[in-house]
Amino acid sequence: MTGIYGVLLDLSGVLYVGSEPVEGAAEALARLRTSGLPLRFITNTTRSTREAIGNKLRGFGFEIADDEIFTAPAAVRAYLAERDLRPQLLIHPGLAPEFAAVDQRDANAVVLGDAGETFDYAHLNRAFRLLMEGAPLIAMGDNRYFAEEEGLSLDIGPFVRALEYAADTNAIVLGKPATGFFHSAVEALGCKPHEAVMVGDDAISDVEGALRAGLQGILVKTGKYREGDETRIDESGARLAQNIYEAVELILGTRD
Amino acid sequence: MTGIYGVLLDLSGVLYVGSEPVEGAAEALARLRTSGLPLRFITNTTRSTREAIGNKLRGFGFEIADDEIFTAPAAVRAYLAERDLRPQLLIHPGLAPEFAAVDQRDANAVVLGDAGETFDYAHLNRAFRLLMEGAPLIAMGDNRYFAEEEGLSLDIGPFVRALEYAADTNAIVLGKPATGFFHSAVEALGCKPHEAVMVGDDAISDVEGALRAGLQGILVKTGKYREGDETRIDESGARLAQNIYEAVELILGTRD
Repeated sequence: MTGIYGVLLDLSGVLYVGSEPVEGAAEALARLRTSGLPLRFITNTTRSTREAIGNKLRGFGFEIADDEIFTAPAAVRAYLAERDLRPQLLIHPGLAPEFAAVDQRDANAVVLGDAGETFDYAHLNRAFRLLMEGAPLIAMGDNRYFAEEEGLSLDIGPFVRALEYAADTNAIVLGKPATGFFHSAVEALGCKPHEAVMVGDDAISDVEGALRAGLQGILVKTGKYREGDETRIDESGARLAQNIYEAVELILGTRD
Repeated sequence: MTGIYGVLLDLSGVLYVGSEPVEGAAEALARLRTSGLPLRFITNTTRSTREAIGNKLRGFGFEIADDEIFTAPAAVRAYLAERDLRPQLLIHPGLAPEFAAVDQRDANAVVLGDAGETFDYAHLNRAFRLLMEGAPLIAMGDNRYFAEEEGLSLDIGPFVRALEYAADTNAIVLGKPATGFFHSAVEALGCKPHEAVMVGDDAISDVEGALRAGLQGILVKTGKYREGDETRIDESGARLAQNIYEAVELILGTRD
């Protein structure tokens, strides 16, 4: 690894797993704060607002401000505003407050989040018909599935594929592992991509995506990590760490 | 075209459009019957039983027996029986009677039809979890969308893509344009693939699919046909006809 001047941290699986903080995570975060390195927390979670995510993290004892949290929905809002797009939203009810101030009349874009139960035939058909009129498809990620207590559940990715195929179009993906998403977060850090590092538990979405975007990357063996996940990374340069604490040691080691 | 010894006819768009028979279709069918050529009617419709389809056709005045109708659900039933597979069905309620006699306990395969409103998050998740345990995904077609009175609606294909992506698998498609589906129908005709012709209004699903399977193919300019559709066919040898009547003239011309 080379000199690091900014750090991106994934949330679920890195700072906490389920309803428990990861051991040593609070201490690791405190060490990063002391170092003065700029930090951003970067997540594909699209079932709750940034404020709700911030409250959850502070409930675990992490000192994190809402405006340090970089989310796909925020990136989507910026994208819509820059292009004067009015979204037809297919998102989770928990995320709706984030779009309350966005004009949704006479929609000319389809925005897809991890909508959960809202992914039904009527909603998907409605989105499909707008796509067939030429509206762009904007997706808050591309993940296949996630783990729930009762088993694995479909994430946003399968529904992105469904609508892409139906309307013969390609989605604009604004969550991890999209290069543009990492670059927006790095911009907020105030350094160059190769001076930033991404720490995550998802070999593809977090680490391969970051490496592809020109960042450095550390895969931690907590959360959804499974033995050998690092062999699935098609880019070189990934580092491995037992957990966030060891990842922070690696990062601070580049600054000695 | 070369000597034809068996004929496959698509239904919707060839024999009837909406609630009206195509002009000259009854006469064309009568001429085929007189010629003694074996016929099969081949359809991807998976929202009603074969008996219901037969009744509809006879209501239009066509003399067609149920056992001349070749459907994707029938092909799926045969596929399941040969392999001792017990399906978890994600199909339209109108099709359920066709599977009433099929053992569905302790499912070890996922079967997808054009399920319409039944394509909801709970049903798709249930199918996804079975696929993740290694069950094969069997689909009654691959179509993107179809026309309803209120607009275009999602067909089975987008949901096939969604589940394929989620579970990282490839579906076995048993409707048109699958080669195996055409070959099963040709077997029922009792001739070789190159001695059979497929007549349909869908350039890709009917005609390109048939040509790819080694059959001859005639695209009729009724039903969903749109000017220039023939240029989308990536196989050589397709013939064009104004309608089923002209298609029958072409077919009988090969037998003079």
